[in-house]
Amino acid sequence: MTMVTIILASGSPRRRELLQKAKIPFKVIHPNINEDVYTQTTPKEIVEEIAKKKVEAVVNIFKQESPRWIVGADTMIEVAGKCIGKPDSIEDAEECLRLLSGRIHRVYTGMALLPEKDKPIVTTLATSEVKFRKMNDDEIHFYLDSGEWSGAAGAYRIQEQGSFFIEWIKGSYSNVVGLPLETFYTLLKENDYPFFKD
Amino acid sequence: MTMVTIILASGSPRRRELLQKAKIPFKVIHPNINEDVYTQTTPKEIVEEIAKKKVEAVVNIFKQESPRWIVGADTMIEVAGKCIGKPDSIEDAEECLRLLSGRIHRVYTGMALLPEKDKPIVTTLATSEVKFRKMNDDEIHFYLDSGEWSGAAGAYRIQEQGSFFIEWIKGSYSNVVGLPLETFYTLLKENDYPFFKD
Repeated sequence: MTMVTIILASGSPRRRELLQKAKIPFKVIHPNINEDVYTQTTPKEIVEEIAKKKVEAVVNIFKQESPRWIVGADTMIEVAGKCIGKPDSIEDAEECLRLLSGRIHRVYTGMALLPEKDKPIVTTLATSEVKFRKMNDDEIHFYLDSGEWSGAAGAYRIQEQGSFFIEWIKGSYSNVVGLPLETFYTLLKENDYPFFKD
Repeated sequence: MTMVTIILASGSPRRRELLQKAKIPFKVIHPNINEDVYTQTTPKEIVEEIAKKKVEAVVNIFKQESPRWIVGADTMIEVAGKCIGKPDSIEDAEECLRLLSGRIHRVYTGMALLPEKDKPIVTTLATSEVKFRKMNDDEIHFYLDSGEWSGAAGAYRIQEQGSFFIEWIKGSYSNVVGLPLETFYTLLKENDYPFFKD
């Protein structure tokens, strides 16, 4: 069976890796948007809004053509009433890890899909809970030294050494990495992506 | 910081990949044991027993030397009162998927560690719950066609297309892949593996 290629409107190497493992053929087009500009107020709404913006930015690149299966995603973390994206500096990352240490936080990924031209963009959301165990100072410095905080929402990577400090997760694992695969599969299937055709 | 190399007493490519991502240096020595022979009766006990056997088998290869940090692991699945290992055939895999479909199952990984020669082997256990959504016939055949069932406890791989059918997990994700990294980290740390030395 050969699957139809999708267009991933995201520059994230982690999302690419998830799609590779899931054996879905894709092309990456980096959406040129400002992720710090949005109109919504809650993380749940913001991630869906930004995911949609990413799809729209990529649609606009195609002038004459009729692209199909354009997918965008955006991930954010919420802990103790604060919304956390990617840290700007190692000091930022340390503050973030101290906030996560010993606490449960929520991870939201918004997804947006344009099934075909002139159809509306559909959006959806995945939520997971993650419990960090209490990290001591040695562990925080060990983890900051790993450099994994750079470019990661919430300053950690669950798929790398971040896993040492994660007591449990509830929900979708791939959501915490940045692309919830069950949600993604369901979104494609509901919009008649040809999974089961030869 | 350079970390001390551990010896992984397991032939599993998935365990290798988890350790690579966690940036722990390791050598693989394949333990030559029969995984179908054990004295315990519950899956929790069986996985710890087999993990220990794997470590013992590798210790016996070193005659004069004094190896350190030998780690073994074994994974099993329990669903509807049945214990499930790796399927023997595609028919076996189909039966297993039909059993998992729409149900919650438990994944157990037993871990064993020999910190240094003449010390006792310590063992520990990780448990996760996994909820499969209801799979229809198209989906079961699609998934069997992927070939992922081969060599996988429970006939699925959560890190590949198996993720399409997993509604949620509770507990450790890496446990479901085959090596629970938080448990592993804690086991090493409790036995004075030098994580925090330069």
